[in-house]
Amino acid sequence: MSSHPLSPHNFPDLFDSVEAFLFDCDGVIWKGDELIDGVPQTLDMLRSKGKKLVFVTNNSLKSRRQYAKKFQSLGISVSEDEIFSSSFAAAMYLKVNNFPVEKKIYVIGGEGILEELQLAGYTGLGGPEDGNKTIHLNQNFFVDHDKSVGAVVVGIDPYINYYKLQYGTLCIRENPGCLFIATNRDATGHMTALQEWPGAGCMVAAICGSTQKEPTVVGKPSTFMMDFLLQKFNLSRSKMCMVGDRLDTDILFGQNAGCKTLLVLSGVTTQPALRDPSNNIQPDYYTGKISDMLKFSEA
Amino acid sequence: MSSHPLSPHNFPDLFDSVEAFLFDCDGVIWKGDELIDGVPQTLDMLRSKGKKLVFVTNNSLKSRRQYAKKFQSLGISVSEDEIFSSSFAAAMYLKVNNFPVEKKIYVIGGEGILEELQLAGYTGLGGPEDGNKTIHLNQNFFVDHDKSVGAVVVGIDPYINYYKLQYGTLCIRENPGCLFIATNRDATGHMTALQEWPGAGCMVAAICGSTQKEPTVVGKPSTFMMDFLLQKFNLSRSKMCMVGDRLDTDILFGQNAGCKTLLVLSGVTTQPALRDPSNNIQPDYYTGKISDMLKFSEA
Repeated sequence: MSSHPLSPHNFPDLFDSVEAFLFDCDGVIWKGDELIDGVPQTLDMLRSKGKKLVFVTNNSLKSRRQYAKKFQSLGISVSEDEIFSSSFAAAMYLKVNNFPVEKKIYVIGGEGILEELQLAGYTGLGGPEDGNKTIHLNQNFFVDHDKSVGAVVVGIDPYINYYKLQYGTLCIRENPGCLFIATNRDATGHMTALQEWPGAGCMVAAICGSTQKEPTVVGKPSTFMMDFLLQKFNLSRSKMCMVGDRLDTDILFGQNAGCKTLLVLSGVTTQPALRDPSNNIQPDYYTGKISDMLKFSEA
Repeated sequence: MSSHPLSPHNFPDLFDSVEAFLFDCDGVIWKGDELIDGVPQTLDMLRSKGKKLVFVTNNSLKSRRQYAKKFQSLGISVSEDEIFSSSFAAAMYLKVNNFPVEKKIYVIGGEGILEELQLAGYTGLGGPEDGNKTIHLNQNFFVDHDKSVGAVVVGIDPYINYYKLQYGTLCIRENPGCLFIATNRDATGHMTALQEWPGAGCMVAAICGSTQKEPTVVGKPSTFMMDFLLQKFNLSRSKMCMVGDRLDTDILFGQNAGCKTLLVLSGVTTQPALRDPSNNIQPDYYTGKISDMLKFSEA
């Protein structure tokens, strides 16, 4: 099925059938540190019409608290409860699966994961502080890993190094039953405004390559986060609309979860890419940017 | 077909039918910096009986020249011409495929790759010197890549970092027709005597993850190197025996190339692993270590 351009004509159908809008952040709400045109007014309009708003991001560098601060710094009031980052998803995955609190979690990734683990009552190791660890490949050098690590969480890590790769690999290979959790597998991410950079999919693949194991993915397009938030907010899948800029994460995530889907062209996906015959992910609707909803609601 | 233990009884069949022995190095000739028991005497015996010897290693950190020095330091006389490292294979792959000398090659890996590229008349970039490059994720930071890079070669790299991952990814993604060459995809390697470390398969997978492309592999178990050396030495496949310690690289390599195969248990593969029902790679013969050939030849 091909997707429809959002229009004043079909917007009421979407709007009236949906109770909650789930927004991806990067490319939808902001680009890097800049707000996309018309976002605050659009969110205000949706709230004023009684729609529930949820922000779902695969970027695991920040915790929900840090994302709430980012929203605030951009002049948008969003509470931590409305934010679902893949860093939070990793902690919730462990919680939901009764991961024992006496076991530790090794983190390849950012501060956000460590903070969410701590808030969930867990002990994280690694993360940014292991970015400074060096290795010496003389014959007696040895990376000694903590045998009480029961899970390795891998997210995007701009400070990836051989020490972290060895530590994570040792835990997964040698600690019996050690879980391998990926925050997400995005190939690229907008780490800076001027170019795309290798995403969590790069670091996750590296650990797949050394362990020959496949991870459990908790971020988009896996439905773990969706199942969790449906339960939390007591919503029905068909009354939710996922709004995102990536076909293979956001739109697939919405479709996997049985939601309506709206692609915005304000991020990585172009209209030719959407229309390309090689693309087999078609959102229900697509539009330029989320503020088109404001325009159509006034039409 | 299950494999036979090498014995005084079947050794003459193997020996008489083979003109050349191809040896993997790590786990067969040496472990780290230590020679495996009986190796020099065994190689001397094979040479004295007119057998051709070839040493085929997936470890791309060294060039052939550096490997010849390592053999010499361990008291074994081996010429550069007898050594086929995956660093050399990468350079030969470019040569055989008429890679233009005016294009550059970005290297994620060790000095050995750069040296072999240079000997083949090519200009390499990156390698160890990019191990010190740092990134600053402020919004205006930008990695500028050389548009004349026409190939990215990825091997094992203990100094892997985000800069190299970004640089290699940019070349593959943005330079039209840029080749992506993997020296090999071994999951692990004996970087130090005391433990295994992530192998080239880790770095190669990372680039696969960020580019969503698959590489051309030139080391074992790909047959590129075999085709090259068969031509060089004018040998027949059925008159060669591949001797190695890894089922999924060495033995598979030998089988892919139509050679006889001998597994030695002096490296990473144990007899239970060979016999495990999940293993579907069976060498023609297996034995403890290569010096068993010396023992059987005297029997």
